[in-house]
Amino acid sequence: MTTKKKKPSKETAESMAARQREISVSEFFLKNRHLLGFDSLRKALLTTVKEAVDNAMDACEEAGILPEISVDIQQTDDKRFRINVTDNGPGIVRNQIPKIFAKLLYGSKFHRLRMSRGQQGIGISAAGMYGQLTTGSATHILSTTKGRVTAHDMQVQIDTKTNKPVILRDQQAEWQPVFYPAGDPPPEPVTYPHGTSVSIEMEAAYVRGRLSVDEYLKQCAIVNPHLQLHYRIQLLEKGEGKALDAGAEGVPVVSAPWFTFFRAIRELPAPPVEIKPHPHGVELGLLMKMLKDSPSRTLRGALSEDFSRISSKTALEICERAELDPKSKPARVAHQESEALFKAIQGTKLMRPQTDCLSPIGEEQMIAGLKKEVTADFYTAVTRKPAVYRGNPFLVEVALAYARPGVNEELGAEDPVRVLRIANRVPLLYMAGGCVITKAISKVNWKAYGLSQPRGGLPVGPMLITAHMASVWVPFTSESKEAIAHYAEIEKELTFALQECGRHLSVFLSRRHKAAEMERKRNYIELYIPHLALGLKDILDLSDQQEAQVQSELKSMLERSRLEV
Amino acid sequence: MTTKKKKPSKETAESMAARQREISVSEFFLKNRHLLGFDSLRKALLTTVKEAVDNAMDACEEAGILPEISVDIQQTDDKRFRINVTDNGPGIVRNQIPKIFAKLLYGSKFHRLRMSRGQQGIGISAAGMYGQLTTGSATHILSTTKGRVTAHDMQVQIDTKTNKPVILRDQQAEWQPVFYPAGDPPPEPVTYPHGTSVSIEMEAAYVRGRLSVDEYLKQCAIVNPHLQLHYRIQLLEKGEGKALDAGAEGVPVVSAPWFTFFRAIRELPAPPVEIKPHPHGVELGLLMKMLKDSPSRTLRGALSEDFSRISSKTALEICERAELDPKSKPARVAHQESEALFKAIQGTKLMRPQTDCLSPIGEEQMIAGLKKEVTADFYTAVTRKPAVYRGNPFLVEVALAYARPGVNEELGAEDPVRVLRIANRVPLLYMAGGCVITKAISKVNWKAYGLSQPRGGLPVGPMLITAHMASVWVPFTSESKEAIAHYAEIEKELTFALQECGRHLSVFLSRRHKAAEMERKRNYIELYIPHLALGLKDILDLSDQQEAQVQSELKSMLERSRLEV
Repeated sequence: MTTKKKKPSKETAESMAARQREISVSEFFLKNRHLLGFDSLRKALLTTVKEAVDNAMDACEEAGILPEISVDIQQTDDKRFRINVTDNGPGIVRNQIPKIFAKLLYGSKFHRLRMSRGQQGIGISAAGMYGQLTTGSATHILSTTKGRVTAHDMQVQIDTKTNKPVILRDQQAEWQPVFYPAGDPPPEPVTYPHGTSVSIEMEAAYVRGRLSVDEYLKQCAIVNPHLQLHYRIQLLEKGEGKALDAGAEGVPVVSAPWFTFFRAIRELPAPPVEIKPHPHGVELGLLMKMLKDSPSRTLRGALSEDFSRISSKTALEICERAELDPKSKPARVAHQESEALFKAIQGTKLMRPQTDCLSPIGEEQMIAGLKKEVTADFYTAVTRKPAVYRGNPFLVEVALAYARPGVNEELGAEDPVRVLRIANRVPLLYMAGGCVITKAISKVNWKAYGLSQPRGGLPVGPMLITAHMASVWVPFTSESKEAIAHYAEIEKELTFALQECGRHLSVFLSRRHKAAEMERKRNYIELYIPHLALGLKDILDLSDQQEAQVQSELKSMLERSRLEV
Repeated sequence: MTTKKKKPSKETAESMAARQREISVSEFFLKNRHLLGFDSLRKALLTTVKEAVDNAMDACEEAGILPEISVDIQQTDDKRFRINVTDNGPGIVRNQIPKIFAKLLYGSKFHRLRMSRGQQGIGISAAGMYGQLTTGSATHILSTTKGRVTAHDMQVQIDTKTNKPVILRDQQAEWQPVFYPAGDPPPEPVTYPHGTSVSIEMEAAYVRGRLSVDEYLKQCAIVNPHLQLHYRIQLLEKGEGKALDAGAEGVPVVSAPWFTFFRAIRELPAPPVEIKPHPHGVELGLLMKMLKDSPSRTLRGALSEDFSRISSKTALEICERAELDPKSKPARVAHQESEALFKAIQGTKLMRPQTDCLSPIGEEQMIAGLKKEVTADFYTAVTRKPAVYRGNPFLVEVALAYARPGVNEELGAEDPVRVLRIANRVPLLYMAGGCVITKAISKVNWKAYGLSQPRGGLPVGPMLITAHMASVWVPFTSESKEAIAHYAEIEKELTFALQECGRHLSVFLSRRHKAAEMERKRNYIELYIPHLALGLKDILDLSDQQEAQVQSELKSMLERSRLEV
């Protein structure tokens, strides 16, 4: 080995200065790809499908289009897959395609306060970057907008040193995503009049089970009943991977038909409204920045126009309380009197943030979604009123399904309850242990509601809990958006919703318990009354008819007393 | 309320394009501040101290200076603290100060492969940004390099829209960080000949306990026995916060003397060496990029110079195996034949990555560190040989301390074992649930080693486990560096180390069990022999002397048979 080792020399301030460098956000996430959900082959597949489907759903809903999405996964080599997701959304204009698909931290959802699935402007570009890293390939996009005949056909990669897109292909092509859903007789093929189709090849692995793409799509369909979803995964025949490696032609696949999750309703969720920041969630430093950047000419104007829940009248009150001239320039206040203003705002009672920026699933629909997919004896749901964490409106919904032991074999009586965690209608599969939802469930005292529960753990029983957090900004514990961070306000709301569901459960379980108890007593009565009657017959020398009468009278008497007890 | 609501209109591809924007990395992390460890007031204090101390330690060690660091925390208002960390490091040259302290993703550690505490170029700038957000204040830095008389005295903030530093003050000032450590009689005051002092004011909270700054610094001292650390926290008198609010002069504090964690050894850890990437950890896409960017003129040169563990001879072999001309230009290969090259590299047996890029604590020092701080009956430690995840060398060390019930009241016999998680000599306090260390401990079968363990949980018993992962790149689950991600290779190494420690423990526990058993038997013997002897005396009519002799003979006979059994 001739590898030269750099001897660690003693550094000085000057030698250290020479090594300081800027780090591009792409380089950062390339090295930290696990933060984006690319830390295992299996998860890479899921993350990519998730990001593409989330984007497709958001685009359709914003454009007022009932979403219809196709997910087509094809194994191309032993550890390689091509993932294609096509939607019937509004399409993307040509000059935005490279940045949307090949630049991290670029998007339309970050800078607004409004509930949506995507929020960071990272996901789909990260998937492309991972494909590029592991296979050297480019992200392939086909997109056409309403009224266009051809589609933009582009291939893009990220220049990770600069976090800028590199365009490898830019042409016009036919738009023809046609799908043949399964059925007998086969239904009409599906064509999308417009939309976007994104295709990425990457190192990945497909494993069935609770952390699989299958499970993700199924949960997606549960919490998005307006979504029509076609899904197909084509795997190489076992052992054929190697042959392909050697350059065999043709792709022998296990033939796989399309599977469709049909939509249950034809209505889009109420479109959430964009809001301004609520003053009580704005820190001093942010207030200073907002005043400095305000387009308003007066402090009073800035307060009433840049924030929600401050009327012009309230703005005046705040100025008076802070002893500031309502006509002063916002930027001047920012530098000199912001602290007084900040305290005046904190000390002013304001309405809670408006909540039409949120679009809950709703109690009925949560139960309906569960009933469709989870066999059980008892369902209940609670949608809480909106609350606020760090100035961000959010709300929490919880539903649960309880099955008597044996009714649903997926819900074992001796197993911890199953938990579906949902954030802004997106199912979360990984990182359950780090999620505030898991924490909140574990901290509720389920013994009070009739379930057993190991100390500090999930309750045990044949039950499934769905918990949904909807917010203008979901505080995920990492960029891969797998778990919700531990904000006390969020945990509190979850706890209240869980407790309320728990009380409903408790009523059901104690009724069931009482019914079982009654059944047991009834059995005793029916067992012993004939003997009693026979005894009386012997003692009192009754006729058969009298015996039957005594038996019937005894029965109704004991029945009465049982009901009274 | 006159707040106007924006009615959600149906979007088109064009209207959506108009809203697409770049997101600066500062804006991103400002909104996602919980990713950086600023999701609660309490954690904000810890994260800031941690980032500043980590930087100070790294700087000292790189410059070959035995680190001496002062952490001075002062409460300035009800929910406000000023945190000051001063070190005796090499100092920072003037033109680097603004970027180091007020630009995210800037630093010297990201682009090299070498073990260090910092790695991202985010931490201290993030702390400053949080201070700026919550109090509008600036980060204040004093720094002087060797031989200088005055210090650079700068105040900087981040322009979050552009992620660039804004300099608010830039002057020369006296360098005089002097500290008066506690002691009786008081020792000499400490002055630092050169170094850096950073001071940030922020909204924060101080709470004692397992997640406190106190605990962090204590653990720091355990795993860095060469560190001398002075620590002081001055809190406002209870209820005085309000008075200060109203503008009272002077700061009434609970007077707090300096507390010093003295260094146990005067030797720096072996300085880790910078290495090149190992070829087996380089994905196809990265290989292509490295070839494209290679300064070498030939493929053979690029292979042997840009990677570790490829000699010139091995490079030739790889070229032959890939059927590539060793003299071809690397950039040309990158585009056309990278896949063949990639497979040739994967198919070539290479030495494992060199490991002098890692600086383990070592078994003896881990035990010594534990003995210093944790009273127990049994200590053991295992330092594993280095292994590789995703091409990155890493190693795992585990130590444990077992105390008989009652010996150490902090280690309850009925409680889950205590776990100290350490990454590159930095203690991790939060997010235990999401850390591969916790997972690995929970998955080991501790019942086999004599501890009880609930299904899937931490073992229960009067024990403490320290687990250290050292690597050129620790894969944290978030930018706040609180937990290590679940890479299978890391979990495997942890499991082996834990099992080995477990076996040591098991030997100790079964010896202890045997000893207890023997003790019990001995007690029986001593209890019954006098009676036996007395009985024999009666039956055989022995003298007192004979009785004593019989007693002693019986004792030694039974003792022998006991030892033989």
